[in-house]
Parts: sequence; structure tokens; C-alpha cells
Amino acid sequence: MPGVYVHGYSAEESERLNAQAGILSGFIHEKAIFAPGSRVLEAGCGVGAQTIQLAQRNPEAEFVAIDYSAESLAIARERVQAMGLGNVEFRHADIHALPFEDAEFDGAFLCFVLEHLAAPDEALQEVRRVLRPGAKVCSFEGDHGTVLPSPDDPAIHRMVAAIVRLQSLESGDACIGRRLCPLLRSAGLRNVNVEPCVAYADATRPQWVEQFTLATITEMFALQETGVLSRGLLSEPEWRAGMKGMRRAACEDGTFAYTFFRGTAER
Amino acid sequence: MPGVYVHGYSAEESERLNAQAGILSGFIHEKAIFAPGSRVLEAGCGVGAQTIQLAQRNPEAEFVAIDYSAESLAIARERVQAMGLGNVEFRHADIHALPFEDAEFDGAFLCFVLEHLAAPDEALQEVRRVLRPGAKVCSFEGDHGTVLPSPDDPAIHRMVAAIVRLQSLESGDACIGRRLCPLLRSAGLRNVNVEPCVAYADATRPQWVEQFTLATITEMFALQETGVLSRGLLSEPEWRAGMKGMRRAACEDGTFAYTFFRGTAER
Repeated sequence: MPGVYVHGYSAEESERLNAQAGILSGFIHEKAIFAPGSRVLEAGCGVGAQTIQLAQRNPEAEFVAIDYSAESLAIARERVQAMGLGNVEFRHADIHALPFEDAEFDGAFLCFVLEHLAAPDEALQEVRRVLRPGAKVCSFEGDHGTVLPSPDDPAIHRMVAAIVRLQSLESGDACIGRRLCPLLRSAGLRNVNVEPCVAYADATRPQWVEQFTLATITEMFALQETGVLSRGLLSEPEWRAGMKGMRRAACEDGTFAYTFFRGTAER
Repeated sequence: MPGVYVHGYSAEESERLNAQAGILSGFIHEKAIFAPGSRVLEAGCGVGAQTIQLAQRNPEAEFVAIDYSAESLAIARERVQAMGLGNVEFRHADIHALPFEDAEFDGAFLCFVLEHLAAPDEALQEVRRVLRPGAKVCSFEGDHGTVLPSPDDPAIHRMVAAIVRLQSLESGDACIGRRLCPLLRSAGLRNVNVEPCVAYADATRPQWVEQFTLATITEMFALQETGVLSRGLLSEPEWRAGMKGMRRAACEDGTFAYTFFRGTAER
């Protein structure tokens, strides 16, 4: 049974996911190239931020995108249709019990999905079940333990710790990136290869400061405010200090880094 | 006035620096290519771990390698001679007051040096002084804030915090990597470009587990034990728990990541 999606389903979150999909698309999709004619499962497509990229970058592949949230799925479907992309089919489904036969798919793609699951190993085994031998798996996850601001600021680390705690209360793991390799291997996948991808912003890379430090990460944190404060994981002044630290890292003499983990494997 | 070299001058440290120079040489030297005929300053050559690589990778450039420690310099000189490398000259000198004319050099290289200085900005300005306009600067630094073990272990983070504290007591900054870009820029260098380089080890990369997680990072931490314990920054059981955590991350289902920052710039 999947938990609540910790980032929420708001319009702001939808917008944030688009900014994130843009600036991070190179990292996320570099290895997500599937052979022409492939039938590929996108497990946990959410509002379709990555689905659009997948469908555009693999015009000769066919995608079946599933999500547990009917609401997200409706948004994803609308967006994919608006883009005129004809190679995506949507299904309302639970990653833990996929409505597909064994070995139906030639590939699978999962982006920012495993972090939200109580048993990501079981979900990966279910994904593996519906893949044919030799099928390619691409996954991409973050790790909040990699938050690296300059100037360093304990208030940021307290805020991130509270966000990690919130996600764990909802049975997720915001620090799953470092576990991606052992997870893929223990699901019985072969030829596992995990690469860290650092998103890094400094004054010489203003587009990363704007679109990554501020529009992706700071905004992602901002969306957790209600959850963190309502559960008493931080006080309001503590929260404000953390957000102030993030904005400080986006100043002319600041820097910010965050590491994602991109995994590929075969059934 | 430079402080004490926090890693010490032991034979173990010399050996560790060699292991580190080997596994990390791609990261460290990828951009450290100097035009034939260049005269290049290596500021803070230590026992010559990088000097050998520099001289081998740039056989048509000439290097002047300086260090504040006469003892390290003697080891470096011996090693470079033993390798039969004829394009390195050694000088006993202080990076804060270089015994060179303005604009004497066509390039500069600094690796794991700024982290040990009380005023890295002033040292960079002095390096800049001896460079001709257009000269290339290559620098490489780590950042202990990027230590990312799996399984995660608070004992490791306590140990790393103590090591960071020890280095700060000796006027250094073990978390300088994130500051490299603003430091290079504030020294008046142009075309600054800083790239994060993640060293990452998991069971699919056994040479990284052995040579990086264990022989480079765990060994670097181990060499701090006396300093940390004698200053009471950790208890012995706390220290042992941290080291145990590091060895745990090197097991079959563990992972370990650490991020370096590679900066290039021009005078």
C-alpha cells in the first residue's frame, strides 16, 4: 500500500516538477534511451514531468505510464495530449501489484519513485516480474544527505533533517540515492551500474542558481513547510532560518550542490 | 605563517597519498594540461604525489614545485629523481611569500593545499602575482561535508565533525571545496570554472571500495586519530564506532561517496 506523496499534489508542486524536469533533464534522461519498437513501463509517472521527456526522446518507443494517484495521472494525460505525443498510454495502477503479465515489457523507467515507497525492494521485484530477460531498467533518485550549501549553515541542515524525518514518517526515504545500487542488485537485476550526478550552482552558472538552487530545491523544501510545522518537527523560526540559509547560498558568493544517483540495470 | 600539516608527515601518510594520487588521478589531472614550453608552479607539492603525475602528463612543460616543509620536499625530490623525471625543480618556499618575480609563470597547480591555509584568499593572490596574464590555474580540493556512507551511521558523521574541528583548530578548512569558486574569483582570477567530481564506491566497483573508501578516505581519517583523541574532540569508543561505520560502508551491500571540487581559472 503506497503512502501519501510527501511533496503533495498542488499546482505549485506541478510547476516545480516542470522546472526540475528542465534543468535536470540531461542527468535524468542521458541513459534512458530505449530501442525503437520497445514497450517501456514508466512506474510512478506522477504529473508526467518525465513522461514528456521520455516520449520525446524515444519517439519510436511506446510507453505505458502508471501512477497510484488518479489525480496526477489525469494531469499527466492532459499534458501529454497537449504536446501531441502519441506514444504514451496511461494506466491507473499500483507499482506493488502491476496489472501486467510476466515479461510484457522491454524496459522500465523510475524517477523519484523509490524514495516514496515503504518497500522499494518489493516494488523493484514487481517491476522485474513484468520485464523480459535483457530488458533495461533506468532509475533516478536524490539523496538529501548530499545537501551542500556555502556558506554552510546549521539551520539548513536542521531543516533538511526535519524534511527527511517527515518523509520517513510517511514511510519514505529521502536519502535513498546512496542505497540505489544495493536495491537494484537485491531485486535480482543484473549489470547494475550506479553513477552519482552532482547538480552544482555557483555565480558562474546563474541558470543553475535560479532553476536548481531556488526553483527546484528551495521550492521543494518550501512545499514541506506545512507538513514539518504541523507535526512539530521544527519551530517556525527554525524553518525560516533554514529557508534564509538556502536563499543566502544563492547569492553572488554562495554555492550549492546536491547529488542524484542514476542507476541502470538489466532484467 | 602556515599551520601544521594536519595529516602529518608519517610514512603511512606518504603511502596513503600515493594510493589517493592513483585512484583519483583522472579527476585531479584531467584539466591540468599545460602547453609545451610552459613554466608551471606547483604550490604545495608535499611529498610529490601529484608532482610525478604532473611531470609525466606534461613532459614538455617545466615545473617548479614548492613546499613549506623541507622534509616533504626532500621526499618529493627523491621520488621524482627515482622516476627519472627531468622537468621538475624543487624550491623550499612559503606560498604566502613566493621567491619569484611577478608574472614569471605560465601556469599554476594546487592540490589539497588551500584546505590547510588560514588565509587561502591571500595565498591565491600571491600565486596570481607570479603568473603572467592568461596563465592557467588548476586547483583541486575536497569537502568533508560530502561524506556519504551507506548504511548511514551517525558515528561516522560525529567522527568527521571532529576531524573538521581538528583541522579548523589548526587554521584549516576541511570543507573548503564548496568555497573554491568564490575563493578563485575573489583572488581576481578570470574565467573561473568549478566542477564537482564525485568519487563513488559500491560493490560493482571493487577497486574504488579498496583504493578509495578504504585506502584513501578511511586511512586519511585513521591518521587523525591521535590528534582528535589527544585534543578530546571524541572519546575512544566514539572514534572506534566511526571507523567501524566506515568499514561497514565498504561491505558488499554498502556504498560510499565523497565529492571533490576541481577549479580552473586564468590570470
